[in-house]
This record gives sequence, structure tokens and C-alpha cells, in this order.
Amino acid sequence: MPSTHVSSRARTQFLEVKGERYAYRRFGSGSGLPLLLLQHFTGTLDNWDSALTDALADERELILFDNAGIGRSSGSVPTTIDGMAKHAAAFLDGLGLETCDVLGFSLGGMVAQQMVLNRPAICRRLILVGTAPRGGEDIMHLEKPRLATHLQDPSNKGYGVLQKIFFTLTPSGQAAGASFVERLAERKDDLDGISGPAVANAQMAAFRDWERVIGQRFAELRTIRHPTLVVNGVQDEMIPIVNSYRLVENLPNAVLLTYPDAGHGSLFQYHESFARQAGAFLSVANDSAVY
Amino acid sequence: MPSTHVSSRARTQFLEVKGERYAYRRFGSGSGLPLLLLQHFTGTLDNWDSALTDALADERELILFDNAGIGRSSGSVPTTIDGMAKHAAAFLDGLGLETCDVLGFSLGGMVAQQMVLNRPAICRRLILVGTAPRGGEDIMHLEKPRLATHLQDPSNKGYGVLQKIFFTLTPSGQAAGASFVERLAERKDDLDGISGPAVANAQMAAFRDWERVIGQRFAELRTIRHPTLVVNGVQDEMIPIVNSYRLVENLPNAVLLTYPDAGHGSLFQYHESFARQAGAFLSVANDSAVY
Repeated sequence: MPSTHVSSRARTQFLEVKGERYAYRRFGSGSGLPLLLLQHFTGTLDNWDSALTDALADERELILFDNAGIGRSSGSVPTTIDGMAKHAAAFLDGLGLETCDVLGFSLGGMVAQQMVLNRPAICRRLILVGTAPRGGEDIMHLEKPRLATHLQDPSNKGYGVLQKIFFTLTPSGQAAGASFVERLAERKDDLDGISGPAVANAQMAAFRDWERVIGQRFAELRTIRHPTLVVNGVQDEMIPIVNSYRLVENLPNAVLLTYPDAGHGSLFQYHESFARQAGAFLSVANDSAVY
Repeated sequence: MPSTHVSSRARTQFLEVKGERYAYRRFGSGSGLPLLLLQHFTGTLDNWDSALTDALADERELILFDNAGIGRSSGSVPTTIDGMAKHAAAFLDGLGLETCDVLGFSLGGMVAQQMVLNRPAICRRLILVGTAPRGGEDIMHLEKPRLATHLQDPSNKGYGVLQKIFFTLTPSGQAAGASFVERLAERKDDLDGISGPAVANAQMAAFRDWERVIGQRFAELRTIRHPTLVVNGVQDEMIPIVNSYRLVENLPNAVLLTYPDAGHGSLFQYHESFARQAGAFLSVANDSAVY
């Protein structure tokens, strides 16, 4: 039986810009600005939760994007966040979009921050989930025992490892994780496939670079005037919530929403709430983050 | 011209329970459970923002309460949070309310926590604004230069000092503070009057006691299963936001919402947003804090 989720059936498209070919999916409609979704470490177009994207696509066009070297996009994965931000900007330019809203999850949230630092007008409203500012702490240290245990466990096959590392190990966290993995498996064809070690290594280099403090710590955040919604699970082991605290303490126009009994994948665990909150935030007509 | 706010015209009532006489105001209607509002340091019934309470009263009955020794309530102000929690419970018993929702602001948020620790069934859903857990840090140290400057400035008359210490000193923060002070001044009669030094001294003793760690720090929070919404301005100088972080990290069923460019009085500064968010939180029919 085909999936009931529009997102699981959306076809992948390709856009040629300056010698690169970017893979993306574009679907949904409504009065909102298009929302660009920037993905997590090793994640592809196939890693977006169809329950979440279907709900978000009810009121606006969504654009899921494979950065350079990811999925079926050409090129090599940059080893800096700035390199990824430049690809995302080139892609938007290629689409002819002067501005849009941006949802960046994890690695994608770093790319989103760098995009608006590089060119503020590229984005109207910003949603940063499970991410960190430059100079943040304890960013994606997969060698930590709490994470390594699951990553090295051969019984965690395919998306199964995401159930363990994106969700709390409580019954409700694991139940939500199992449902998430089921939804990822809804797509049967037109797949990106799984990212390999070259992708992981390059992105990990970008994390290590992003962890470095440059100049006065967090000073660049104070120049980002965009209305921003920051979201994090309180038990995020991959990019701990302290990074979200530093974001809202330094971004001048940001609201923080935290979820209980949730880890890195809080937006998938609580996809109904997240879509409602994100929708309310994106629907604000003025230039305040408060909704 | 009389105020257009229902809250500014609500009459004060009195309830005799076990030899005490408690002052309160009760107004509003709707399908929600009654919402008990617990007030801040030296605050009385007159210190609730009519714009906020009018909005909250659209969907439920509100009960504003003067604890013992405050405003026109009899008795002396307890020097512990537990003493205040026992008065609030006696008051609810006297009203014949078996359960209700509770919004505790600052000192009131501590009383709310102690109430549900003492008797969980007394409350269904809990909203904690600008407050701290037992063993929290930097709670109401009015001797800090940032606060003392305003408290000792003779040009800050009446409610004017609240504009300085509850709101950020930015133009938008001070404009919101000025509007708040204007709304407080709407009530022309049936007033509680201003709390004196005896009230302040006893409540300050309660803060100092609440700052002490007893047993394992924050362990009691993990026993509070109530759906809880924690709200804080990111620049709260009176009870810094780190206390709200500790609340949501330890309460098992709590969501945090933070407001930008806001201090202790974030719920008054952003009264429209706060009423909307609180209303959505209180309207959830299941036992999750997530809304």
C-alpha cells in the first residue's frame, strides 16, 4: 500500500547551478513563504519525517535540499559550515528565490546561521532545532560512550540506530523513535540511499571547525536580527541543550521552546506539536520572534 | 473613564478559613478549570496585569489570591515557602476546590511547586514564570548593583520601580514596562495598598531558605509529574533564567518557553503571546506538557 504521506511520494528534482547538480524535493502550498529544510549529519532527502513535513506543507511550500556531495547532489561535501552555506545560497539563487524561511536541524541549523550571516536578506524567519552556535560545546562527539554504544551495536541496522540516538531510551521516547523509523521506511523508490564514510568524515571536520571560537564568543549571534525559533529536546546527547541556551541568550530576537523526555530528534518525536508551534511562529506578520 | 478591563473592576472577596481571612478576586468563565494565580515578592491582588488576566479569563475562571499577611489577608507572612503553600492549600480547601490549574509567578512559582509537592492532587497543570527550584541560584538578591540602582533611585515612584526591574532597559522593554504600569494604575478603588517592609523581610527570609539545597539537589523536581509550562525572559536579573533551565532539565514533564529582550516581567511584557501560549497549554486534554 502506498504511503498516505504526500512527502513520501514527492519526486526528487534536480537543479543545475554553476556546474553543480543539486537534488531537492519541493511540495506543499499555502500562503506562507517557501520553507527551506536543511538536514542533519549524514542525512539526505530521505531522512525527513513525512508526518512532520506533511503537516508543515499544509500552509506553505517546502523545499528539502541535498547539499553538495549528499544523496544525489554532485560535488564533494565541504569541510566547513561556510562551504555548505555557500552551496545552499547558490541553490536558492538557482531557484530564483530571493528570500524564504529556513528550518535548520542539527548540522542544518549551523548552515542556516552561516547563511544569514553571509547574506541576511536570504531568509525571513529562522527555525533552529537541536543545533549549536559557532563556539558551542560538546557538538557531535560520537565517541562519547552514550552514543558510541549504539553506533557500534551491530544489532542497530539501517535507520534503527536513529531510534537509539535521536530519542530518549524511555518507553515513550523509544515508541516515538520506532514510529519515526517506520515513517522513514515508507518511501520505496526514488531514494537517495545511505551516506558513506566520506560524507561523515567531511561533515565531522565541519563540526570540529564550528566548535572553534573565533573572535569574541557568540558575538556574531548578536548581529542576527532575524526572528528565530530555537527548539531542543532537554536530553539531547548529540548537541546538548546548553547550546540552545547560548543561542537564545545571544540572538536578540529568539524564542526557545524545549521538549521533555526528548533527545536530538525532538521535532520528530513531537511532530504534531512542533508543526503547530513552527506554523504559528512562521505565520507572524511582524518582525518579532514572539508568537 | 472606568477601565475597559474586567480585571480592573473585579471586586475583592474574603474567605474565612481556620481563623484566617483571605482576600481574593474571582472572575472569568469558560470550559477550563479554575486557574489560581500566585503572586510575586511584595505583590498583591493589585499587581496582576489586567491585560493578561482579562485574556486568561476569557476561557476560565481566575482566582487571584493574597497569601497570609499580604494586602487585606489576615495573619503574618510566613518566612518559608512551605508556610505560604499551606495557606494557599487551606484557601483552596475553603473554597471547596479539589483541584485547579496554578500559575505561579516568581515567589508564587516557588509556592506552586511546594503546593504540588505537599499534595499532588491539588493541581492539574502548572505554569511557572520567572521562578526557581529549591536550591536555585542568585534568587532575588536585590543588593546586586543592577537591581539596587533602581530600587534606591528616589525618582522611581510607586509602580515606576517595576518598570525598571521587571523589564529590560531597551526602548521596547521600557515601553512595555510603561504600559504595564499604566494598566496597574487603572484600578482606582477597592485597593490592597502597597506592601511594607515587614512583608518584604519575611518573604526575603523565605527566598533565602528556598536557596538552600536540601538532600540531592533538584531531586524533588523529578517527583512532580504535573504537566508544567516554564516561562522566563532571557534577561531576568531578579531570578536568572538558569533557574528555568534547571526546572525543565529535572521536571519530567515540562516545556520551556523563553522570551527575548525580556526580564522578570516577561508575562506582562508579552501578555498577548503569553495568554495565547498559556491558553494552548492549559487546553491540552491529556497529561502531557507538550502542546
